[in-house]
Amino acid sequence: MPSRRRPRRPRRPAVSVLRLGHRAGRDPRLTTHLALAARAFGAERLYLNPPDAELAQRVASVARSWGGTFEVVPAPNWREPISAFPEAVVHLTMYGEPLARLLPRLRRRSRLLVVVGGAKVPGEVYERATWNVAVGHQPHSEVAALAVLLERLLGLPGPGAWRGAARAIVPTARGKRVRTLSGGRRA
Amino acid sequence: MPSRRRPRRPRRPAVSVLRLGHRAGRDPRLTTHLALAARAFGAERLYLNPPDAELAQRVASVARSWGGTFEVVPAPNWREPISAFPEAVVHLTMYGEPLARLLPRLRRRSRLLVVVGGAKVPGEVYERATWNVAVGHQPHSEVAALAVLLERLLGLPGPGAWRGAARAIVPTARGKRVRTLSGGRRA
Repeated sequence: MPSRRRPRRPRRPAVSVLRLGHRAGRDPRLTTHLALAARAFGAERLYLNPPDAELAQRVASVARSWGGTFEVVPAPNWREPISAFPEAVVHLTMYGEPLARLLPRLRRRSRLLVVVGGAKVPGEVYERATWNVAVGHQPHSEVAALAVLLERLLGLPGPGAWRGAARAIVPTARGKRVRTLSGGRRA
Repeated sequence: MPSRRRPRRPRRPAVSVLRLGHRAGRDPRLTTHLALAARAFGAERLYLNPPDAELAQRVASVARSWGGTFEVVPAPNWREPISAFPEAVVHLTMYGEPLARLLPRLRRRSRLLVVVGGAKVPGEVYERATWNVAVGHQPHSEVAALAVLLERLLGLPGPGAWRGAARAIVPTARGKRVRTLSGGRRA
């Protein structure tokens, strides 16, 4: 059993994610996957640029059922979250430096903003990022890159209900087992 | 530097992926992300059910530029690839057993088929899988789950051109650097 599973990790950065260049008409499912992966793998919030109220509500509904404090925050101006994380901005790009090389530095931070672009990322993002980080240098997927980065930073999420959850999965070898919880308690 | 980066790993399973229940009209971008993540994180092929020739061509075009031997294989009958991997089928589901617990067993196999479902997965898949594996027990994303599983199984992909690539990224702290290669050689 790896020793770096999340609940046992004494210190780990608090991670926020900024999704840049979301296209409400074209990206709804991809950005939903990105938001859910951010939440499931331990990020605290997703800043969404441009904002998308419908998507934020869908994710909030998941968070209400499954617990935790994850939220989607509208970010009409993407420079604002970047400015709020001085010296702690990780821009995910396949052109960047290898994650394996930068990981020890990222782990030492108390908070990080992970910036995830869509099709076109302004050059300014590469300049303002503290680190441009590649999770592999092949074309892949921002959902994949974010999940792997979070897993390497924070460890695999453990089982167990999240705080305030109305339901939680009971891990099982076959089939599906879900527990219903009275709201507000932690299993 | 972690010692389990991919190129140095002496033995690792050869991984194929089966995407179940793809909907060509609704899922094209998600399944493209899934295919690219499968390729980038070291899988050898994606069986696609039902087949989608257009998507297979798009992925083949990426693979031609960036090298390697990854392919999308049409799978009109999803039971066939499952039958071809006896005792080596990993079904990714948030209802399954924790990845951390099963990882040592998965790593010992010489080959694995990772099954990734869409919205509705037939109960038969849970029964026929050798392992039902959860990469976290919260709703997330099949792209995220696949990428994290592959990374934990095979390690982070290293930099460097892939065999037969026409181009390769030169990792850099700022901006984008791409090398053009004469086809067929390995950098």
